[in-house]
Amino acid sequence: MTSPISPQQQVAVPGILGGLGPMAHVQFELRLIQRNVERGARGDRDHPVWVLINCTTVPDRTASLRGTGPDCTAELLRYAGLLEQAGASFLVVTCNTAHGVYDQVQPQLEIPWIHLMACTSGHIRQALPTVQRVGVLATDGTLQCGLYHRSLRQAGLTPVSFEIDSPRQRRVMDAIYHPDWGIKTTGTQVSTKALTVLEQATGWLKTQGAEVVIAGCTELSVALPQMRSLPLPWVDPLEVVADITLDLAWGRRSLPLWQAA
Amino acid sequence: MTSPISPQQQVAVPGILGGLGPMAHVQFELRLIQRNVERGARGDRDHPVWVLINCTTVPDRTASLRGTGPDCTAELLRYAGLLEQAGASFLVVTCNTAHGVYDQVQPQLEIPWIHLMACTSGHIRQALPTVQRVGVLATDGTLQCGLYHRSLRQAGLTPVSFEIDSPRQRRVMDAIYHPDWGIKTTGTQVSTKALTVLEQATGWLKTQGAEVVIAGCTELSVALPQMRSLPLPWVDPLEVVADITLDLAWGRRSLPLWQAA
Repeated sequence: MTSPISPQQQVAVPGILGGLGPMAHVQFELRLIQRNVERGARGDRDHPVWVLINCTTVPDRTASLRGTGPDCTAELLRYAGLLEQAGASFLVVTCNTAHGVYDQVQPQLEIPWIHLMACTSGHIRQALPTVQRVGVLATDGTLQCGLYHRSLRQAGLTPVSFEIDSPRQRRVMDAIYHPDWGIKTTGTQVSTKALTVLEQATGWLKTQGAEVVIAGCTELSVALPQMRSLPLPWVDPLEVVADITLDLAWGRRSLPLWQAA
Repeated sequence: MTSPISPQQQVAVPGILGGLGPMAHVQFELRLIQRNVERGARGDRDHPVWVLINCTTVPDRTASLRGTGPDCTAELLRYAGLLEQAGASFLVVTCNTAHGVYDQVQPQLEIPWIHLMACTSGHIRQALPTVQRVGVLATDGTLQCGLYHRSLRQAGLTPVSFEIDSPRQRRVMDAIYHPDWGIKTTGTQVSTKALTVLEQATGWLKTQGAEVVIAGCTELSVALPQMRSLPLPWVDPLEVVADITLDLAWGRRSLPLWQAA
């Protein structure tokens, strides 16, 4: 694992449970590469080894958590086990909503699953110490489980979000899932309509006192680089966890990173 | 593996030996997603499962083939074995130069390694039947092994390229490897200087009678979407193999795809 250019030693292998959807893990890989280049990587061998599965057979997480579709727990557990067998030292699941079954899956794994919400809330507390009210744009599944709400409150922060089944939340769900123009539908391109909805939604959160907004669904992390008008600063959980992943891989930080919320 | 939207059945799992460099396999994943969307994918579960390792400990392939650095064969074989164990049904190695050890590695694997050059040459013959002279931009390692030259000639085509150690070939190598502005150095961004060199190199190949040019190094596939001025049409081996990968995954095509050159 040594490099002729910067002889840093990799001490942990990230396992990326991707494909939820595929663009989300690609965006995560892009953040890993870019942040690592910003840290001084200059050649292939300056980047850490990682293992990844495009786990597209995992049932939809929101439908699973809301009880309107098949349970996603067994498939997540199966893929996590495959990553573990392939040599992963820790797990990153590039889907916010999947963290709704964290408490069922983590105890059955040998390796730690890096918790997106705990890391993001801790990051905001540390990096933005004056911020109190934090907007959350997320799927119904993530909101219903209170994933960001619990982590933010534990970090002493106040979450601001839309009610499930409210017209505004339905628009956010459309931006993610709409069969014609939703981010999951359009692949590598994000539609203007989805971008407009997300800009409007951010504006609404601002009127409710939010000072920053969390891209609380990996599809929103996909859209983020393409958004031109940002009514509030965004916090991107994929970027927060990319930094933590590199820290763990290069031995700059060790586990555990947080107390369970 | 069925989907509620388009109930196609995945019959083979791609194994992607990536990290050579990391941006190359990310570009391959983007092509898989985009081509699959163009075929009708509308949600996460319409994309095939794939397994991937960011194999950044593989020694530099050009240095290995030219005898100026450590041999890359054993590491490639080790990672191919890991992908095989993780459930891959066939292998895609997102590095052209690595195909210089194809004949040493393939016989030691249980699963087939999809040959970039054979697929690309076959594609040109079929999709561009009037083309005869094919430009090749590639690393010294790929040129020294005659990887594209052999496959193109077998397909009845005439390769056009620069001599190893000529000033023009050295410029191409700089565009890939330069420690300040080379594509492997700059991560997710491609420098203007690298883009300019590739545009000039394409122009030179055109003056030598090339009718199309192959992006014969995955770093060139990374640069391709960012190039504005294209003196010749490009053929992108990553795109050719993305289509074949989808065909194999969905059972639209089966192996073997070619006769060894």
